[in-house]
Amino acid sequence: MTNQFPSQLLENAVQALSGLPGVGRKTALRLALFLLRQDEAHVHSFAEAIVNFKDQVKFCRHCHNLSDSDECDICSNPLRDASTICVVENVQDVMAVEQTRQYRGLYHVLGGIISPIDGIGPKDLEIDSLVERVRAGGVSEVIFALSTTMEGDTTSFYISRRLEGLPVKLTAIARGVSVGDELEYADELTLGRSIVNRVAFNINPH
Amino acid sequence: MTNQFPSQLLENAVQALSGLPGVGRKTALRLALFLLRQDEAHVHSFAEAIVNFKDQVKFCRHCHNLSDSDECDICSNPLRDASTICVVENVQDVMAVEQTRQYRGLYHVLGGIISPIDGIGPKDLEIDSLVERVRAGGVSEVIFALSTTMEGDTTSFYISRRLEGLPVKLTAIARGVSVGDELEYADELTLGRSIVNRVAFNINPH
Repeated sequence: MTNQFPSQLLENAVQALSGLPGVGRKTALRLALFLLRQDEAHVHSFAEAIVNFKDQVKFCRHCHNLSDSDECDICSNPLRDASTICVVENVQDVMAVEQTRQYRGLYHVLGGIISPIDGIGPKDLEIDSLVERVRAGGVSEVIFALSTTMEGDTTSFYISRRLEGLPVKLTAIARGVSVGDELEYADELTLGRSIVNRVAFNINPH
Repeated sequence: MTNQFPSQLLENAVQALSGLPGVGRKTALRLALFLLRQDEAHVHSFAEAIVNFKDQVKFCRHCHNLSDSDECDICSNPLRDASTICVVENVQDVMAVEQTRQYRGLYHVLGGIISPIDGIGPKDLEIDSLVERVRAGGVSEVIFALSTTMEGDTTSFYISRRLEGLPVKLTAIARGVSVGDELEYADELTLGRSIVNRVAFNINPH
């Protein structure tokens, strides 16, 4: 046995699982042997759920949120206030704001934030489409709900410059969320208050 | 949006992933969104590796170790000493002993240990097949390499009674591995020494 593993099939499964973030080879082995103990139908539907998600999930053509169709449940909901757009970094942040039940407007998912260190510039994000949405009219307020980090502030600032001259009010969620904390880990009460108490966006707050 | 998730496909993927041991819904969401960022071929081969492992992996008909064929690489290796059988709880323990490079005999994987609390009795384990292997002849030594716990000791004791009267020497790995520790977490040096210094199995050590 030159190989550490008694089976190439096991080796392949461990290799696949250890490619997941935070999963080392020892954990991957435990997961593989756990799956081996489940019945066949369970393992097949496990794999199917992942493949179907990857193959079939769509991004909303308006806000780029994850969706089962071309238009997400939020954008297609006539009860939502279409005149307000909340700008967030990613899908988790949409879910975090939704859970507060304090917001009835729409979203715009950037797909990241400007981060020169990671090589992410404005062109890699859904910023052009946000400007387009605002330019198309009917939007009276854009709320920045980005993380209160250097990158988040830079992104809000960049977008505010791109929206300059358009008849739209720019606001940012209240800094009830402690500076430096990631949005998705904030407790619902704090995050909800940040949305209710949002303040006018100021290019030079200091 | 009555559902926390913006997409049923995402919900399904998160549900599948959170079924893994040690993976909560938040981690499952991160894993799902990580997989979404990978290219399609990667996700497909990820799922395939798991399904193929589950569907095609076999258990060696002699020692019940995992194998790609009916007979594992160890049992089919003519250079291994077929007169010695090392009894272990599971596949991870085979791998742990192999890594010490101190053992050239064969194995017998019980598939667990006797544990009344978990409802696991002798009939649930590969004990009959071990007795059969010894009875078939050609085996001069059976080494117990089970965890030094109440359950491990009970299992060794039970098997020793089943082998009574057969012309085979019973040994147990030296207790260099600290009592109460799981075999698979022992460092290679300690575990290797335990195998080299194995002692005669004594029904009443105290």
